[in-house]
Amino acid sequence: MDSSRKPSAGSGGDLPADELRSALRRAADLAADYLEGVGDYPVLPPLAPGELAAKLPAAPPRRPQPMDAVLDDYRELIEPGVTHWNHPGFLAYFAISGSGPGIVGETLSAALNVNAMLWRTSPAATELEERVCDWLRQMVGLPAGFRGHINDTASISTLLALAAARHRLPGAAIRERGMAGRVDLPPLTVYASDQAHSSFDKAAMTLGFGLEQVRRVPSDDAFRMNPAALAASIAEDRAAGRLPVAVVATVGTTSTTSVDPIEEISAICARERLWLHVDAAYAGSAAICLELRQLFAGWEAADSIVMNPHKWLFTPVDCSVLFVRDVEQLVSTFSLIPDYLQSAEQGVTNLMDLGLQLGRRFRALKLWMVIRAFGVDGLAERIREHCRLARQLAGWIETEPGFELAAPVPFSVVCFRAVPPGSPEEQDRFNERLLAEVNAVGPIFLSHTRLRDRYVLHAAIGNIRTTEEHVRQAWELVRDVAGSLRP
Amino acid sequence: MDSSRKPSAGSGGDLPADELRSALRRAADLAADYLEGVGDYPVLPPLAPGELAAKLPAAPPRRPQPMDAVLDDYRELIEPGVTHWNHPGFLAYFAISGSGPGIVGETLSAALNVNAMLWRTSPAATELEERVCDWLRQMVGLPAGFRGHINDTASISTLLALAAARHRLPGAAIRERGMAGRVDLPPLTVYASDQAHSSFDKAAMTLGFGLEQVRRVPSDDAFRMNPAALAASIAEDRAAGRLPVAVVATVGTTSTTSVDPIEEISAICARERLWLHVDAAYAGSAAICLELRQLFAGWEAADSIVMNPHKWLFTPVDCSVLFVRDVEQLVSTFSLIPDYLQSAEQGVTNLMDLGLQLGRRFRALKLWMVIRAFGVDGLAERIREHCRLARQLAGWIETEPGFELAAPVPFSVVCFRAVPPGSPEEQDRFNERLLAEVNAVGPIFLSHTRLRDRYVLHAAIGNIRTTEEHVRQAWELVRDVAGSLRP
Repeated sequence: MDSSRKPSAGSGGDLPADELRSALRRAADLAADYLEGVGDYPVLPPLAPGELAAKLPAAPPRRPQPMDAVLDDYRELIEPGVTHWNHPGFLAYFAISGSGPGIVGETLSAALNVNAMLWRTSPAATELEERVCDWLRQMVGLPAGFRGHINDTASISTLLALAAARHRLPGAAIRERGMAGRVDLPPLTVYASDQAHSSFDKAAMTLGFGLEQVRRVPSDDAFRMNPAALAASIAEDRAAGRLPVAVVATVGTTSTTSVDPIEEISAICARERLWLHVDAAYAGSAAICLELRQLFAGWEAADSIVMNPHKWLFTPVDCSVLFVRDVEQLVSTFSLIPDYLQSAEQGVTNLMDLGLQLGRRFRALKLWMVIRAFGVDGLAERIREHCRLARQLAGWIETEPGFELAAPVPFSVVCFRAVPPGSPEEQDRFNERLLAEVNAVGPIFLSHTRLRDRYVLHAAIGNIRTTEEHVRQAWELVRDVAGSLRP
Repeated sequence: MDSSRKPSAGSGGDLPADELRSALRRAADLAADYLEGVGDYPVLPPLAPGELAAKLPAAPPRRPQPMDAVLDDYRELIEPGVTHWNHPGFLAYFAISGSGPGIVGETLSAALNVNAMLWRTSPAATELEERVCDWLRQMVGLPAGFRGHINDTASISTLLALAAARHRLPGAAIRERGMAGRVDLPPLTVYASDQAHSSFDKAAMTLGFGLEQVRRVPSDDAFRMNPAALAASIAEDRAAGRLPVAVVATVGTTSTTSVDPIEEISAICARERLWLHVDAAYAGSAAICLELRQLFAGWEAADSIVMNPHKWLFTPVDCSVLFVRDVEQLVSTFSLIPDYLQSAEQGVTNLMDLGLQLGRRFRALKLWMVIRAFGVDGLAERIREHCRLARQLAGWIETEPGFELAAPVPFSVVCFRAVPPGSPEEQDRFNERLLAEVNAVGPIFLSHTRLRDRYVLHAAIGNIRTTEEHVRQAWELVRDVAGSLRP
């Protein structure tokens, strides 16, 4: 090995070809070893804040270091120091997966390293993205008019949708004229349920709507947006001279995976001429299962829909698909072509026209590999199994004295709590301790949320490696720890 | 192999462990083969629009397909169908690299698949990101107060900076109150040179400033922002009752890599109390070379600086580092913590607080591997060599009759044009034909821009595999094609 790594004829300034190949092969084996053994780690690493940082040199190395030394450090310091999202006992938040085919896709995408901003800068990345998004559209049963493209996160997909809604306002010309200092522009309001994701608020802050113009519409006992309250809120804003712009309805909210009544909301949006954005970032994948599709009834009337294959379709982060009914709405909101990016091809998609970010990774590759390697039926089967496991867990909880379900279980997330004798505040503290002690054991990581101001445990079954055994283990651990905490 | 891929005990619903390992190994070899042979491809794939799409099934497969079949298709359809950004003859736009250590990092990042939104959701990803960004800060000579974090793109990094600038406006409270329908808020203006990147305009559109409030300050003969014109533009806006918010100065503009006079601009920003954001997305890496650091003089006075390791630091897309002088400005702009993401750790960084997107890939891993594998001196040496090659190309152009340099060459981009006899319009058409014919040959891909409304060729030397031989080949090709086009 040439330790100084002067540029050589074959690989230019990159690693010499043989060292590069052996590092890539070792990375492949490290990844395979990791996935085989990840279940042996505690899900949460036993690290105090700053403990890892203290092991990392304060200054960068001046001289090159052999990849084998770098990978040794990776294995010793980094791998054991992450929270293991790919662990079958990871049941927190939304449990996601970097599946094998997706990891393969990311390796190759990094090797190609294309920036698919223009068709010309990567025809295959552009056309595969269009094709794979259309596969996904078919898989979830959306009409042919919907056109999908891939963003990094649902935070961005939702921001793009709300920006398009803002752009569409008749006479507002916000792209050109902006929002500040205009006497012709009233406050602009946006609506979602009190269960909607925080990315809605962040988009509203960023786009200049302002948090005071964000309406969090009350939800019902099953945490679904109350359409009458939505209509009343819109009417109140109109009466006060404000201008309603858009509604975000959620299929699969973050705390409980509740489902907003899309059909009623969409009727309100049509009547009021509001943009309807459906946030199905997590649950959208479940529309692949025909028996679950009724939960999505009405979403085909939306102006835009976000679903994240990196959540529940076994695709490594990041991969968020934004479907829009009229892609021209996005193009007119965002397209802006400087001289240095003018290109001659006619009738092609230039993905940079569809959003904010110019740079675009080749994310379609991993999604294509995931869909092909598992097949649509195989994906449906896995999602179905996750829902079955969640129902099973919910059943155990329902029949266990001293526990209660905190919300219905439409998909694969179970919210529940222990209900020991005592005040609600004492119960909250009990559940908080319960969660901390369960998570400290190691094999299981649950998260929490608050529902109607009560502290609630949240178990999400979504990782491709999670089996009935892990869910059973989680439940037994929760029950045992709760038993030990009770006086 | 279990072709139906029912969930099994070992890997849950993922590929069986042996198939997964062999797919990862094949991907490693495909990546290594690609990098060894990429120079044999034409840089631009010989594909017509729709030609690849026609080869992809219109509907997704119902049944799983073996990874070997998927990878065969990858090899046959996708790899030859991309524009080869990793080709040593890629001299268009900014030439980027997915280097070996970076590809290794992406493989492992996909296998870990962490979402580093909270310290708790991945201590190692959070602490490594902080450490590696601090390494980078030291490498480019920024003072210790600057704190870096990684975004996907400079489009987002610049948007975050301008959002923080907007948030800081005294009394404006835009996060809470928004921008529309307010009599107390005048039009808000932002400034950059006529050479600044289009992401500045997209950020201004998105944040609700509006394109009419975007001031494109004229640049001088060397394409550097004219500070007197900036001051005059600010004064004019103030006189008209508008409120200036921020200036974006660029070190390394997209067309010519010109360098705005940061010290003078920063004095104006200080006097006018404007946020100064420095866009060094491409050229920032060059500050690693001490002899180039004078081009960055004054940037330490900026409020924020963006530099993209995925541009000229051999790191696969995406990796954009935003340095801010006062991280609290970002946190107060963006932090918003829902119940389900409350966490107990004190004194830690939760990366989600620093920006718009909740989901965060483990991008620090690849950057750490790149810095270690090449070393700071090795990185400087590669960047220095690219600048040397650019000066050499510029020298050849200057001494060649019938050609002229179109801009100074401070870094590694050369803008030039053929100047055959004829009107400026005829010359433009000649250069357009020249570019098309050069790019059609195969081994070289150049791009173009417009400077003072003239069509100009743009050669960027930045890929880690590019050597003197490739630059010489490019120049000979340009000269030969130009000769054949002359009557």
